[in-house]
Amino acid sequence: MDSGPCAERTLVTTRLSQLSNVLSLPDPALPGQPLAQVDTPSLVLDLDVFEANLGAMQQWADRHGVALRPHAKAHKCPEIARRQLALGARGICCQKVSEALPFLEAGIRDIHISNEVVGPAKLALLAQIAVRADVSVCVDNMTNLHALAAAMAQAGARITVLVEVDVGQGRCGVTDDHDVLALARAAEAMQGLRFGGLQAYHGSAQHVRSHTERAAICGQAAARAAGYASLLRAHGITCERITGGGTGSAEFDAGSGVYTELQAGSYAFMDGDYGANEWSGPLSFGTSLFLLSTVMSTPAPGRVILDAGLKSLTIECGLPQVHGRAGLAYAAANDEHGVVRVQEGVAAPALGEVLRLVVPHVDPAFNLHDTLVAYREEAVVGLWPIAARGLSR
Amino acid sequence: MDSGPCAERTLVTTRLSQLSNVLSLPDPALPGQPLAQVDTPSLVLDLDVFEANLGAMQQWADRHGVALRPHAKAHKCPEIARRQLALGARGICCQKVSEALPFLEAGIRDIHISNEVVGPAKLALLAQIAVRADVSVCVDNMTNLHALAAAMAQAGARITVLVEVDVGQGRCGVTDDHDVLALARAAEAMQGLRFGGLQAYHGSAQHVRSHTERAAICGQAAARAAGYASLLRAHGITCERITGGGTGSAEFDAGSGVYTELQAGSYAFMDGDYGANEWSGPLSFGTSLFLLSTVMSTPAPGRVILDAGLKSLTIECGLPQVHGRAGLAYAAANDEHGVVRVQEGVAAPALGEVLRLVVPHVDPAFNLHDTLVAYREEAVVGLWPIAARGLSR
Repeated sequence: MDSGPCAERTLVTTRLSQLSNVLSLPDPALPGQPLAQVDTPSLVLDLDVFEANLGAMQQWADRHGVALRPHAKAHKCPEIARRQLALGARGICCQKVSEALPFLEAGIRDIHISNEVVGPAKLALLAQIAVRADVSVCVDNMTNLHALAAAMAQAGARITVLVEVDVGQGRCGVTDDHDVLALARAAEAMQGLRFGGLQAYHGSAQHVRSHTERAAICGQAAARAAGYASLLRAHGITCERITGGGTGSAEFDAGSGVYTELQAGSYAFMDGDYGANEWSGPLSFGTSLFLLSTVMSTPAPGRVILDAGLKSLTIECGLPQVHGRAGLAYAAANDEHGVVRVQEGVAAPALGEVLRLVVPHVDPAFNLHDTLVAYREEAVVGLWPIAARGLSR
Repeated sequence: MDSGPCAERTLVTTRLSQLSNVLSLPDPALPGQPLAQVDTPSLVLDLDVFEANLGAMQQWADRHGVALRPHAKAHKCPEIARRQLALGARGICCQKVSEALPFLEAGIRDIHISNEVVGPAKLALLAQIAVRADVSVCVDNMTNLHALAAAMAQAGARITVLVEVDVGQGRCGVTDDHDVLALARAAEAMQGLRFGGLQAYHGSAQHVRSHTERAAICGQAAARAAGYASLLRAHGITCERITGGGTGSAEFDAGSGVYTELQAGSYAFMDGDYGANEWSGPLSFGTSLFLLSTVMSTPAPGRVILDAGLKSLTIECGLPQVHGRAGLAYAAANDEHGVVRVQEGVAAPALGEVLRLVVPHVDPAFNLHDTLVAYREEAVVGLWPIAARGLSR
């Protein structure tokens, strides 16, 4: 009866209160959709190139009689690890204990934590994982080795210990013969531990641009690793595994006669930083991973603005490249914006157009996204959870 | 009866199959715990400093009769937004549509999307939010304005349009008088839209180090914004709101007589980049946000390795600083490692010791973490979900 303003307000309030405040965010894509319809920013994976990369590295390892243990820190995605294992990979690497959880849940049972694990919370979790899977871990400190053994004893777990040696990177790892020997002997002697060999990873060698210089540095690292293995052998201790190698060094490490397994990860995707290496040897990989981004402003001639910035990729290894579009240069990254300069004489992309960016650095880029959009021949075929995203503990 | 190897294997298999593969990751901290027991890497917030920062900016806005609309892209945490609103903030800013969802769910009803929104999926979501809250959005393109109106009509929603003008940053926004006028008039005329005023944000002005130079650049930006407002007024169009301002410019923008609301976000936390500004005016803020990180290797004199790298913070604005520990310099960030150089004569931190890092850039750092650990007087008081982490669509 009363149609005045008060009644109207009541009606409006009622209508609003019936609406849920919980709006769910739709998936960024549906299987079958063309790639250009994927909501952005989104990480997308070209399956044809990805599969070729997986095959190339596995064949390289097989040909040289070394195991491939791809690094899951690169992608954090169980579906990718499963495909690597299906092709013959021995197991996976993780860089943090918590990172291993989604891979364990996905049924993966051979996990190397390619890092030292320090602190009671992390060691307790590591022991729980070691109860459920074959786990190895790095050690470079005697106090830490004792804490590791105590955590394993507490959980009734058993773990393989690899002594990390520093073969030139200058990060973690022991360098002194006495330390290598003491840690290996202690690991052999302690209950719940099993000495498995050495980790000899040279991170900075991976991005030495020149192919010949990279070969030389990798040769030096392998020689150092071989030296530590000889030392142990001379004292009656066998190194069953010598693990290391990355995308930039795998070519040299596989045939070194020293390494028994390769830890490469980025090879499956490639990024701007690895793309800048000289690839003149027998091993090379294609770019399978891109960040899709939409032109969300065309404010001036020569400048368009993308919807992807520092929250969709990281730029410590340089700025992203605009793929397949000569004359477009991603010139600056803000939190949620990318400024693209358009070369004179080149047609600027239109508002709403979707561009493909080559990610400068794969690992931290995956760590920003919850979903990987897999596609083949420009059509979406699957949404793969990046289940270990954010698991850095 | 049969105690041979086969039976033993069966027993082991049974035991393993009874174990769940799903191990849950414990929370990084418990309320009441001392800060040094928080699992790392973890973002932690010093509530005393944080509350002082919130109060200082709110008082500054109140004193100048401008609204404070803190930017939620800085923290992505509804609990923080709630506290800002409780002190008098008018509403919040979000930089992306999807980012607004957890804040809507938390009951926040005044949301400005301080950005252009392009593409049907995003516009449809924006309309759904606009049905449920007071929403404003930026526009700098006539085609986009039409698409926005169509999306609002489709959902029966109404939204406030702010025309974004470029006042010196060179990112999004129109600069031409004709464009400003045409967009404002069209927004006034279209159903489902309401012209609300201007967004005049100058991002690069925020980090001009010199206080006097920063004041000058902010003055120029405000003058440009005032010029556009005058133009509109001369054509009978009122700018109810002129929004802009950040942590580095709020001191000048608040008293400019031009801006009606401030969008600052980082002031609540401060970071290395803002810390490098010259703060010689009446407004300054303390560092409330730190990344806790553990020493996980002490491989050589003069070098210790932390468990926090590129997956726990970003370095496009410089490397993190080790807080309160003279002689320790975070010298290099790898994916999950930080290399700290120890100055000669300074005691190196021990294995397992927890250090506090000043984050170089707040916004992308929050975007890497799911939980913020709030503490007071060195004890944990709460775990706050960073609910909008990763919401960049």
